[in-house]
Amino acid sequence: MTEQTPNKEITNKALTPRKQDYSQWYNDLVIKSGLADYSPVRGCMIIKPYGFAIWEKIQQTLDKMFKDTGHVNAYFPLFIPKSFLAREAAHVEGFAKECAVVTHYRLKVDEHKNLVVDPEAKLEEELIVRPTSETIIWNAYRDWIKSYRDLPLLINQWANIVRWEMRTRLFLRTTEFLWQEGHTAHATKEEAIGEAVKMLNVYSDFAEKWMGVPVIKGVKTASERFAGADDTYCIEALVQDGKAIQAGTSHFLGQNFAKAFDVTFTNKENKLEHVWATSWGVTTRLIGTLIMAHSDDNGLILPPKLAPIHVVIVPIARNEEQMKMIDEKVSVIKKDLEAKNISVKYDNDDKQKPGWKFAEYELKGVPVRIAIGPRDLENNSVEVARRDTKEKATYSLTDLANKIDHLLSQIQDNIYQKAIDFREENITRVDSYDEFKRVLDEKGGFISAHWDGTAETEARIKEETKATIRCIPLNNVQEEGKCILTGKQSKERVLFARAY
Amino acid sequence: MTEQTPNKEITNKALTPRKQDYSQWYNDLVIKSGLADYSPVRGCMIIKPYGFAIWEKIQQTLDKMFKDTGHVNAYFPLFIPKSFLAREAAHVEGFAKECAVVTHYRLKVDEHKNLVVDPEAKLEEELIVRPTSETIIWNAYRDWIKSYRDLPLLINQWANIVRWEMRTRLFLRTTEFLWQEGHTAHATKEEAIGEAVKMLNVYSDFAEKWMGVPVIKGVKTASERFAGADDTYCIEALVQDGKAIQAGTSHFLGQNFAKAFDVTFTNKENKLEHVWATSWGVTTRLIGTLIMAHSDDNGLILPPKLAPIHVVIVPIARNEEQMKMIDEKVSVIKKDLEAKNISVKYDNDDKQKPGWKFAEYELKGVPVRIAIGPRDLENNSVEVARRDTKEKATYSLTDLANKIDHLLSQIQDNIYQKAIDFREENITRVDSYDEFKRVLDEKGGFISAHWDGTAETEARIKEETKATIRCIPLNNVQEEGKCILTGKQSKERVLFARAY
Repeated sequence: MTEQTPNKEITNKALTPRKQDYSQWYNDLVIKSGLADYSPVRGCMIIKPYGFAIWEKIQQTLDKMFKDTGHVNAYFPLFIPKSFLAREAAHVEGFAKECAVVTHYRLKVDEHKNLVVDPEAKLEEELIVRPTSETIIWNAYRDWIKSYRDLPLLINQWANIVRWEMRTRLFLRTTEFLWQEGHTAHATKEEAIGEAVKMLNVYSDFAEKWMGVPVIKGVKTASERFAGADDTYCIEALVQDGKAIQAGTSHFLGQNFAKAFDVTFTNKENKLEHVWATSWGVTTRLIGTLIMAHSDDNGLILPPKLAPIHVVIVPIARNEEQMKMIDEKVSVIKKDLEAKNISVKYDNDDKQKPGWKFAEYELKGVPVRIAIGPRDLENNSVEVARRDTKEKATYSLTDLANKIDHLLSQIQDNIYQKAIDFREENITRVDSYDEFKRVLDEKGGFISAHWDGTAETEARIKEETKATIRCIPLNNVQEEGKCILTGKQSKERVLFARAY
Repeated sequence: MTEQTPNKEITNKALTPRKQDYSQWYNDLVIKSGLADYSPVRGCMIIKPYGFAIWEKIQQTLDKMFKDTGHVNAYFPLFIPKSFLAREAAHVEGFAKECAVVTHYRLKVDEHKNLVVDPEAKLEEELIVRPTSETIIWNAYRDWIKSYRDLPLLINQWANIVRWEMRTRLFLRTTEFLWQEGHTAHATKEEAIGEAVKMLNVYSDFAEKWMGVPVIKGVKTASERFAGADDTYCIEALVQDGKAIQAGTSHFLGQNFAKAFDVTFTNKENKLEHVWATSWGVTTRLIGTLIMAHSDDNGLILPPKLAPIHVVIVPIARNEEQMKMIDEKVSVIKKDLEAKNISVKYDNDDKQKPGWKFAEYELKGVPVRIAIGPRDLENNSVEVARRDTKEKATYSLTDLANKIDHLLSQIQDNIYQKAIDFREENITRVDSYDEFKRVLDEKGGFISAHWDGTAETEARIKEETKATIRCIPLNNVQEEGKCILTGKQSKERVLFARAY
């Protein structure tokens, strides 16, 4: 991609170290690496070209995975009539408090020459800017689904979403965000549950193989469920400060929306039944997750599979003649690399020194840096530095493209393995509430503990410690035990953590 | 793509004939072919999977063209503070009357258990749902641009847009629509004008080579300009009922937004200057344009380059044994075609008869239909029907994929040529107002006529005839003449038409 980030942003590249203030480190990093910017609209962000290039890679990959599993894309309206939201009781309960509401459709200039809302252009029924699209989509499905032959209906939409958040953080929690939302309709409960689990597996594959972020697949407790779901499946990641991030969710919606919008079908026995539903989504939060999972005090560390630029080449020349020779050599190297689908940026801008560039591309998380100077020209070699381990090595030009391709795979594997190791070290089994609180404060991470299964206990633990039950892992080991808070019987451990 | 359109929609395939009611024909076609659906939100449409698949092809193609010309994508907030809109006088004048306004950020349940807007959650400053993004983007550019080294800034965004329309029509004019908007910043006036013209050429290339729709490139008169532009360039298409469609616009914005948002840069001479701007966009209206340009009374005619399915294969079997043999043969044919990037749907659904399927895929505008029956098996042949001319021919299986590939190119060329011929027949030169009105009523199309260059004359002609000046063609022939309305001197003809 063409580099569009203006120079002035990175004049001060130093980030707050993670140990000093993790939260500030993250904000510094997002801004200074040119991924995103704050906006004048409270809680909304601007996704800058470098950040958006990562989102485009996420989109392309997931879109293909959705299509390979039989889904098609469509687009439903941004606005939802207020009355639609009210149809499903749990749904409205969950979303009413964070809705942006359109009440008028015209501005006018008043007698004082101020631009004001035209009171005569008041909507009869207010419109909600979609916080999610179940209601508007199931209202359409009522007309689209009549018979079992119309099922399954497997539709996805890429869209922007608005949920009025009081405390926001770039990528991880913003008032407007980008996402995809799958909305599927099925003839049977079993098929719908199968779909919800299938898409959870798509998400976990994507998180692990593309983002390099290991995730735990599980099911949410009733109090953490999506508003309107019978079950919410999730993938939970762990990041470097020991907090969890819910990276994606897939919901089995039962017949709740079919009943709220009267969506029925004639089954093979010619009987009328309500349709079964799922919905599933991931958002621009994935970008925040991968930043927090891998990056360091020098900048981003991006998994090669999602990095907008794989390789940056920096020339080191003392005069124009050398520069010309390097240019020639690089044009061959670049072509060879690009033939292997490796994206390359050759930064021969003479306004900046090599050292400045090295720091710049470290900050931006470009996985591989190639430096080439006069001695390299003599030796037919280049200096190759990998971003993840900061190791440097001299590579001969022979078969360079294959070697770089292999190195990119190694980097992808390495950052994933590092994240797995970190996660494994940070799952702690505890058997008392004191230990629970101590581990939470001193170490963080996932805490595997027994819980009595009640919403009351869950709420009290949350209130007292700010830790929530992230999930009940799928295929969880069944094990007799006692709730850490109440001492009541429990048949399995669940995973607690403080979370973003 | 997997076919998701439910059966019931196409039980009545008959369209209102174009001659009887062109407008009704269009609405019938959009709905019955499964491209889009009406929504419960006034003026907003649902883009169904088949229609969205066309939009995805449009997006992919244009996105590559934008990137090949040095642009990168980004994403800016959906909401625009009301005060931003007011900063550029012409801009607010143009958009104030069609703005959806967010005034509150929360709903609540009142004492009668009704879901109402929470009066305590009123925004201090109202937010406008973006009708276009110049203001929010130029506000950001103020921080991003400091020096000539930061220029040019070449950013595009794919987004949804809301303009409150009173009279809507699926795809062609909807309250919410999808589009891309390029917003570029330049150091000089010449470079900005060059960019605006370059992107106009990208649009006209796309319209002609992909959509098969010839367009006239021109510049708008002052009264038809984008609100806030110094010049609006446009591509104008003509459709079968003789009306024009503005298919894309590219604006030279001068320094208007730079001044409104105080965006300056230090030039090479170290002096502070205001930045020069362009913006350019095409929308889901392109889908309406290509439908209206090519389709007939039997359904859609899609240009192969944008058709979601290139080839449909329909088996004609009298028994299961024949069906099995056809299945085997088709699996080979399908593989060969797909190896040439031809997308194929094999419709072996036994619930529908071949005749029903033929009508169905005609309605959906699949460019090529292959039918294969027992005699074809014997003769090692298939029956090939092209959608555009409805010609049928028997093709031997030898080298079939190449022949189909060639046929698809022929179809692409043919529908383009047909549209060119239609357009050429429907540009009429007139030299009097009476003739102007007569041609407009009896024939339609573009009318090339002299105009005295005043907004008053333009407005009077519009009021009396509903015809507008579509554009002053680029590289227009300079020719002395007299205005058809006022008889005043004119130095060139302009193009009038009634338009969508």
